Amino acid sequence: MKVMTAIKDMQSEIGKQKGLGKTIGFVPTMGFLHEGHLTLLKQARKENDIVVLSIFVNPLQFGPTEDFSTYPRDFERDRALAEAEKVDFVFYPSEEEMYPHVPSVRAVVQERTDVLCGESRPGHFDGVATVLTKLFNIITPTRAYFGKKDAQQVAVVDGLITDFNFPIELIAVDIVREADGLAKSSRNVNLLQDERQQATVLFKSLQIAKKAIEHGEQSPLKLISLITDIITGGSNGQIDYVEIFSYPQLKPLEKLEGTIIIALAVKFSKVRLIDNFIIQID
Amino acid sequence: MKVMTAIKDMQSEIGKQKGLGKTIGFVPTMGFLHEGHLTLLKQARKENDIVVLSIFVNPLQFGPTEDFSTYPRDFERDRALAEAEKVDFVFYPSEEEMYPHVPSVRAVVQERTDVLCGESRPGHFDGVATVLTKLFNIITPTRAYFGKKDAQQVAVVDGLITDFNFPIELIAVDIVREADGLAKSSRNVNLLQDERQQATVLFKSLQIAKKAIEHGEQSPLKLISLITDIITGGSNGQIDYVEIFSYPQLKPLEKLEGTIIIALAVKFSKVRLIDNFIIQID
Repeated sequence: MKVMTAIKDMQSEIGKQKGLGKTIGFVPTMGFLHEGHLTLLKQARKENDIVVLSIFVNPLQFGPTEDFSTYPRDFERDRALAEAEKVDFVFYPSEEEMYPHVPSVRAVVQERTDVLCGESRPGHFDGVATVLTKLFNIITPTRAYFGKKDAQQVAVVDGLITDFNFPIELIAVDIVREADGLAKSSRNVNLLQDERQQATVLFKSLQIAKKAIEHGEQSPLKLISLITDIITGGSNGQIDYVEIFSYPQLKPLEKLEGTIIIALAVKFSKVRLIDNFIIQID
Repeated sequence: MKVMTAIKDMQSEIGKQKGLGKTIGFVPTMGFLHEGHLTLLKQARKENDIVVLSIFVNPLQFGPTEDFSTYPRDFERDRALAEAEKVDFVFYPSEEEMYPHVPSVRAVVQERTDVLCGESRPGHFDGVATVLTKLFNIITPTRAYFGKKDAQQVAVVDGLITDFNFPIELIAVDIVREADGLAKSSRNVNLLQDERQQATVLFKSLQIAKKAIEHGEQSPLKLISLITDIITGGSNGQIDYVEIFSYPQLKPLEKLEGTIIIALAVKFSKVRLIDNFIIQID
């Protein structure tokens, strides 16, 4: 495994690999790897000749009140985890390397951002799209891997790849869950003991909604009300949002049709959890 | 020579050529080819295995009061000219193919745009950068060719390639001139007879400025005044601007140092002409 910190070295290495006809799987991260990232790396390892992991805490995607400076970083730990997943290249540039001056150009996301978690994070997805545009041009991957846990990010990346015509296949990887259904997250350890038990109601409410759809429920409003009731009844969590949109367009729906997402966010005493599922309505 | 209208066909053809290790020279245009374009095609032909010409009148780069619908188009003429220049592929997509829906993302140029011609065309370079981001991802050229006549466009493309890390070499091709020094332009035919004679003063004024720099002139203001006097004295043209900036950053200068551009625009009765030169100050 090689660690590359210079853009030109990374591009030259990738050029070599592509010259040999190798396929490249790319997992972009901000480091401090957790099980979700490792799942992406495993799938990339299975499907590509070369696996590239990038670790870059991207200042552009943090708001002024957000935790850029205190975002957790542990490169040695990440390096060991990457090595264990048989990553070929870790791209680990400095902020100076990625943004040596005020950039003359940036990517602005004008759809899919003003709902769900994006609503409270103006500019966040512009920062994500800008750094991904750079990383996609540096790594020129065959496939790029993202977790469905952050379904809005997947929707934005889908738009970025489609509308900027990147010759990249987007691979959206299923949510990894605990045995009781709770979506895995580094933040789950911040749940109080009784909250950890209650938190299973998030996934349960989504499962019940799915059943209701399979039994013919077509009204987004009724499903939202059903999910809200289940979460409120089964936990002390405070609902931040329960929403249903077309996917990946993230447009409101009068009735269920096409591919849709049901997404929710619930605040517990020290942590806010998200979950979602995406389903194709026939 | 093949004409491609579908993005996926173009990408698949490019994939084949790259698989064979071919280098790709790319000349993006809005069609209605003139001698400037042909110069770019000739240079691309010399330096690359494969030459791709794109013809697409990009609605995003026209302002609401600009001439998108009346912009001249003549595909059969362009096709014959491209064939004569031994172009391998003409990429000629429809508006529907390039923008099938409201794009979820666009490129926004935040430097190098609020001066020179950009000042009067808000949003113009965002449209240029957005379509080029798409075209660069579709064609994935080794080298992309632009004329120095539109030096601000070259500066913006330089920023786009550098700051988005496109693995593309920007080739800026020298201005082609008539025997008497007037920069070639399709618009020169719109000069009245006496204006055609007077218009040579643009290039002359730049040459005299260059001599003044070689003789030690360091003040941008004095050079601008010199050029203004020469143009005003030698023509009935109305000066739109005479400006000196760092290049390609297009920042104002207190004194001449580094690489600089002297750029000017002069209005005659039916046509506005531009000219410039870029020089490295030691």
